[in-house]
Amino acid sequence: MKKIVVIGGGTGTTAVLSGLKQFEEFDLSVIVSMTDDGGSNAVIRDQFGLLPLSDLRKSIIALSDADQKLLRDIFTYRFDKGEGLSGHTLGNLIMMGLSSLTGSEVGAVEAVSQLFGIKGKVIPVTTEKTTLVATYDDGNTVIGEHIIDEPIKDSDRKIISLSLLPEVEANKEAIDAILHADVIIAGPGDLYTSTIANIIIGNISDAISKSPASFIFINNLMTKKGQTHWMTDIDLIKEISKYSKRKPDITLMHNGVFPEGVVEYYEKKNEYPIKESENLDGYIVLKENLVSEEIIEKQSGDDLVRSLIRHDAKKLGDILYKIIYQQL
Amino acid sequence: MKKIVVIGGGTGTTAVLSGLKQFEEFDLSVIVSMTDDGGSNAVIRDQFGLLPLSDLRKSIIALSDADQKLLRDIFTYRFDKGEGLSGHTLGNLIMMGLSSLTGSEVGAVEAVSQLFGIKGKVIPVTTEKTTLVATYDDGNTVIGEHIIDEPIKDSDRKIISLSLLPEVEANKEAIDAILHADVIIAGPGDLYTSTIANIIIGNISDAISKSPASFIFINNLMTKKGQTHWMTDIDLIKEISKYSKRKPDITLMHNGVFPEGVVEYYEKKNEYPIKESENLDGYIVLKENLVSEEIIEKQSGDDLVRSLIRHDAKKLGDILYKIIYQQL
Repeated sequence: MKKIVVIGGGTGTTAVLSGLKQFEEFDLSVIVSMTDDGGSNAVIRDQFGLLPLSDLRKSIIALSDADQKLLRDIFTYRFDKGEGLSGHTLGNLIMMGLSSLTGSEVGAVEAVSQLFGIKGKVIPVTTEKTTLVATYDDGNTVIGEHIIDEPIKDSDRKIISLSLLPEVEANKEAIDAILHADVIIAGPGDLYTSTIANIIIGNISDAISKSPASFIFINNLMTKKGQTHWMTDIDLIKEISKYSKRKPDITLMHNGVFPEGVVEYYEKKNEYPIKESENLDGYIVLKENLVSEEIIEKQSGDDLVRSLIRHDAKKLGDILYKIIYQQL
Repeated sequence: MKKIVVIGGGTGTTAVLSGLKQFEEFDLSVIVSMTDDGGSNAVIRDQFGLLPLSDLRKSIIALSDADQKLLRDIFTYRFDKGEGLSGHTLGNLIMMGLSSLTGSEVGAVEAVSQLFGIKGKVIPVTTEKTTLVATYDDGNTVIGEHIIDEPIKDSDRKIISLSLLPEVEANKEAIDAILHADVIIAGPGDLYTSTIANIIIGNISDAISKSPASFIFINNLMTKKGQTHWMTDIDLIKEISKYSKRKPDITLMHNGVFPEGVVEYYEKKNEYPIKESENLDGYIVLKENLVSEEIIEKQSGDDLVRSLIRHDAKKLGDILYKIIYQQL
């Protein structure tokens, strides 16, 4: 069995996990960023001192064999009646209960993984509380993932450095998984607030650079305002290389063909397909059709809103399988 | 596959289910009594209008392939901090959330069954609210399962009739399961407050009497003060026959050999091994060693307190298998 470690946490990561879990040959782990501080994550962090749940939840659901919709509905169900319960999500309550029962949040993640029969291991990148800090080329600094995620209108400033306040140690399990992996996969996902948000934790980047594993980067489909609006494919790869202290052995990216009409939708928000560079600067880039044919027209509360164009889990899984077994 | 319907809800039922689920040849359903009105059952019924959960929980846990202890811990975890959460159990919150998500309590039971990968079907005997009424030979009437369960000290009065207030209809699924079963198993469990509490609901007894299925009664091990203190094995069988409008085709009962020392413990509480009658009055009774060698010395909150002597799941399962496939 090949040990695969996926680094990320958001919707892109769930596509990679869903695509890979179909193969019996893979022993999957996913390292999930813990700096999400928006919405309900803020509530459970501030009120109950718990890890942010939303990305953990997505990975747990992606790796489960149970009905995905039912699991998502259960985790995100919000109580609206009953004294004192109003506003809590069932997912948070389950994690709070399990944290208390098992004595730790990592124990809670393990218990819920076992309970829902997930195929693989979900690893919070750290168990310590920390916050993302972005420094921009206009000299400003912004603290907090959900603020970095909401760019200033009409500003084209670039993030020149992403760091943490305070510095924290990585979860030892995450380090071990990376050091003993056969393959490390980073992305796709929000470049700074999801992918690099993992890599800058403690000695994660040292582990990536030291690991004998192959290192695969999966490039994004679209630019994102406030993070990657100025970037070409190579700019993203270089940024990953810089923070990881290691060049990807191969970058997988979409071949640029999109379903009709959806690109225009993104253009209205000043978001565009990631531009392909002519000069790949020595980086190995494999271009394939990775996009889902199914267009999500509208999505309810649970964070898929910007994913009109998404990576296709099956396509990603099939191509990654071929790369890993060197059939491409 | 043989369709087996188990009627009960308490700890004895979980032993039957655990014993039967080891066999791939059985398609299991369990019909669970809904008249438990003690403790947290009263809270969720009165405050949230939900079905009593504790017996449903036991059957779901028994039929699950997940870690039984973890599942039990999760269902019974009680919040003790966090504004407004204090006193709620995680199990109740999960069921409340799922009831709201699926639109019904039966939907919630189905969802949680699917979620925890249970092997079989858990069916509430009714979805309507009703209360047990016991009429005694001293002319008194008592309303409420948890009151019937707590006998008056120094009284030897007998229950002469068990009924419902109000009369309610049986869950159609329960009726269907009974009518289409190959085997119906009643007991072991508290005679009136668990086993007969199912049989008197709506037209359950009509269904039992009409069903082409074999009808197996599993007799209790010990008398219970206030319910079966005056009964021999045949008295229990006759009481089941009366309420079911049908004689069991066979009664399975323990052969009377108990681990050393435990019977004395029960005697202090005026509870005794069920006496074997010499005249079986035409009933077919199979006596086997059905008792667990493992003696539960002490048990935490979750209702196993009086089960120092318990039916052994493996022994029950093996013997039921032989009866059902007529190897005995």
